[in-house]
Amino acid sequence: MNIAILGLGIVGGGVKDIIDKSPRLKEKLNVASIWVRKEKVDATQNKTNDYQSILDNDDIKVIVETLGGIHPAYEMIMDAFKAGKNVVTANKAVVAKYMEEFIYEAKQNNVSFRFEPSVAGGIPWIQNLKRVLRIDDVQSIGGILNGTSNFIIDAIVNQHVSFDEALKQAQDLGYAEADPTADIDGYDVENKLCISTDLAFNTLVKPGDAIKKVGIRNLLKEDVDFFLGRNMNIKLIGQARLYNQDKLAISIEPTLLPVDNTIATVNGNLNYVQLTGDTIGPLGFLGQGAGRKPTANALLQDVVDILESNPYYDIDGSHHLVIDNNNFSAEYILRTELDLSELQDVSNLEGKYWRLANQTIESAHMLYQEILQRDNKAIMFRQ
Amino acid sequence: MNIAILGLGIVGGGVKDIIDKSPRLKEKLNVASIWVRKEKVDATQNKTNDYQSILDNDDIKVIVETLGGIHPAYEMIMDAFKAGKNVVTANKAVVAKYMEEFIYEAKQNNVSFRFEPSVAGGIPWIQNLKRVLRIDDVQSIGGILNGTSNFIIDAIVNQHVSFDEALKQAQDLGYAEADPTADIDGYDVENKLCISTDLAFNTLVKPGDAIKKVGIRNLLKEDVDFFLGRNMNIKLIGQARLYNQDKLAISIEPTLLPVDNTIATVNGNLNYVQLTGDTIGPLGFLGQGAGRKPTANALLQDVVDILESNPYYDIDGSHHLVIDNNNFSAEYILRTELDLSELQDVSNLEGKYWRLANQTIESAHMLYQEILQRDNKAIMFRQ
Repeated sequence: MNIAILGLGIVGGGVKDIIDKSPRLKEKLNVASIWVRKEKVDATQNKTNDYQSILDNDDIKVIVETLGGIHPAYEMIMDAFKAGKNVVTANKAVVAKYMEEFIYEAKQNNVSFRFEPSVAGGIPWIQNLKRVLRIDDVQSIGGILNGTSNFIIDAIVNQHVSFDEALKQAQDLGYAEADPTADIDGYDVENKLCISTDLAFNTLVKPGDAIKKVGIRNLLKEDVDFFLGRNMNIKLIGQARLYNQDKLAISIEPTLLPVDNTIATVNGNLNYVQLTGDTIGPLGFLGQGAGRKPTANALLQDVVDILESNPYYDIDGSHHLVIDNNNFSAEYILRTELDLSELQDVSNLEGKYWRLANQTIESAHMLYQEILQRDNKAIMFRQ
Repeated sequence: MNIAILGLGIVGGGVKDIIDKSPRLKEKLNVASIWVRKEKVDATQNKTNDYQSILDNDDIKVIVETLGGIHPAYEMIMDAFKAGKNVVTANKAVVAKYMEEFIYEAKQNNVSFRFEPSVAGGIPWIQNLKRVLRIDDVQSIGGILNGTSNFIIDAIVNQHVSFDEALKQAQDLGYAEADPTADIDGYDVENKLCISTDLAFNTLVKPGDAIKKVGIRNLLKEDVDFFLGRNMNIKLIGQARLYNQDKLAISIEPTLLPVDNTIATVNGNLNYVQLTGDTIGPLGFLGQGAGRKPTANALLQDVVDILESNPYYDIDGSHHLVIDNNNFSAEYILRTELDLSELQDVSNLEGKYWRLANQTIESAHMLYQEILQRDNKAIMFRQ
């Protein structure tokens, strides 16, 4: 089967490398064309900037999109579907935003749309989630979905460095971008959580909807030390839970976990994702959530599934859910320079740390947003 | 699709229950016949003791074997293949022992043989392992494969009870049999490790081959407390590692892990299995390794795969591996009433606990077997 790769960066190059080095893949797959920027065109290596020529080539069955970002990835994926090509992608931003359009267009053209690496990288999370749904309904999903922020927290805990030093390490290692916003403000988790929620509950949730989100930008080493002193580890957890049949609680929060909790032990830039199903109960997956080889591996798993015509268990997004974070009581701890002693249901834990009792996700995040107006270094933790 | 269930005990009944309660399964699957003991026959409920009538029924495509044990499970599975039926089973003992015969006979008759729940129960371990092998070679597999022994250790740690009390709890909860030998002496892990090894390395390893095995029968609360005082938790770990292309190190041992190691935190009767692949790196799976619903769920996943004609990625066992536990140096700790101070490479750790240095798996187990001759309550831990 002939495939084309869009982009030959870290992930796209990884796809080509794995195929080149794997006898069992080379006998099945041929990289017929690679779409690159104009200045990188090289006909002797099948590198072209002429996308139309790829779309017009009937021998090419699968487009492997590794460009990242929204544009031109969105347009190139849509054009691929219209040209009758199957598409696989690792691009969580474009999938989270355009899930509905992609599903529709793929279906119209009777082709496959797969995006295993878009959530949790090398972990076969989407494949397993979809298989579970053949038998069970799923009540909740969630976990550690951003390896960069997990690496940063882990470096603060185990290398005793500051947040800034940990972030710099992550950037030096290529885990974090020069602009780390997507990782440390939770946008990357939000994309992955939207995609997972869509699949788990056959619905359509977009980033920016009513998802409550706190990142780790304001995390300090003193926070880590403070909670470690109480035998708690901090993890950035994204989670979604179905309740009352049609309501969804969905949030992304630095979360306090006992140090001997399994999720609290997931270190380095690993990811951990878990679901809870009717009969299967809890099912957790641990592995590399990013990186050249694991991401390329997951893309190739999707390609092989297309080659083998394995069913994908598509969603149609017809289960209309209301995001409502008002129904679950949760306990939060806030670190701020402000004096919160006058607030109802707030008690001082120690120094700058305040315990919020009797909160819902909604009310706690509302309070936190108010506090951020006056103390933009404040941070809130879910307990 | 019509299926027949052999046995209507805990797991067989669970299969029927899940189908009955699931609209999405009921529209696809029909339990056409249930094979039961003579005294349970009830024609009004499709319960028969006449296996030949099931084999002769061309409408029945899948035999779901839930009898357990070696006989008559072995004969009934072989007869099913010969009658052109697909077989799914949760029966690790019979699969570990007769893998070669079953694979051969299924192939001869062009039918599917699946056994997802035979290892790690509800965890989709076999499915994921086989998918990984589509792209990667796997270097090692292993983890917590016996929920009963994990429950016992966890109860000693967290409920501060004795081994005997923990075992009694496991029996009262239905986790352990009246004769707990298979669980606490490592035979159950051995079966699961053989099956996983066969699949991971395309080889054929049988229980009783040169696999080095220590169970938890001799574990005492004082052992648990002793190592907890050193921030170590004990887990019964089965593992297999390929080396030098054609050699296999394979062992089952109570293993000392730092309390903040992810595997050390797997509590209750959960299972955790991990593999390491060329490009995917480490990939871990956590879930319920036994129990009515998770096991029945995994059987039904196999049935649905047959219904959907999903590829199984069969093995032929042609990769001949030599089990050789002489090449890896490992450190062990032995607890015995004997004085080992005269032995080479043995030093006293504290009281009855002795540290063995410069060992291979083979030499440590040989020494332990010698010590057991004179102190049958001794126990050895891998560090």
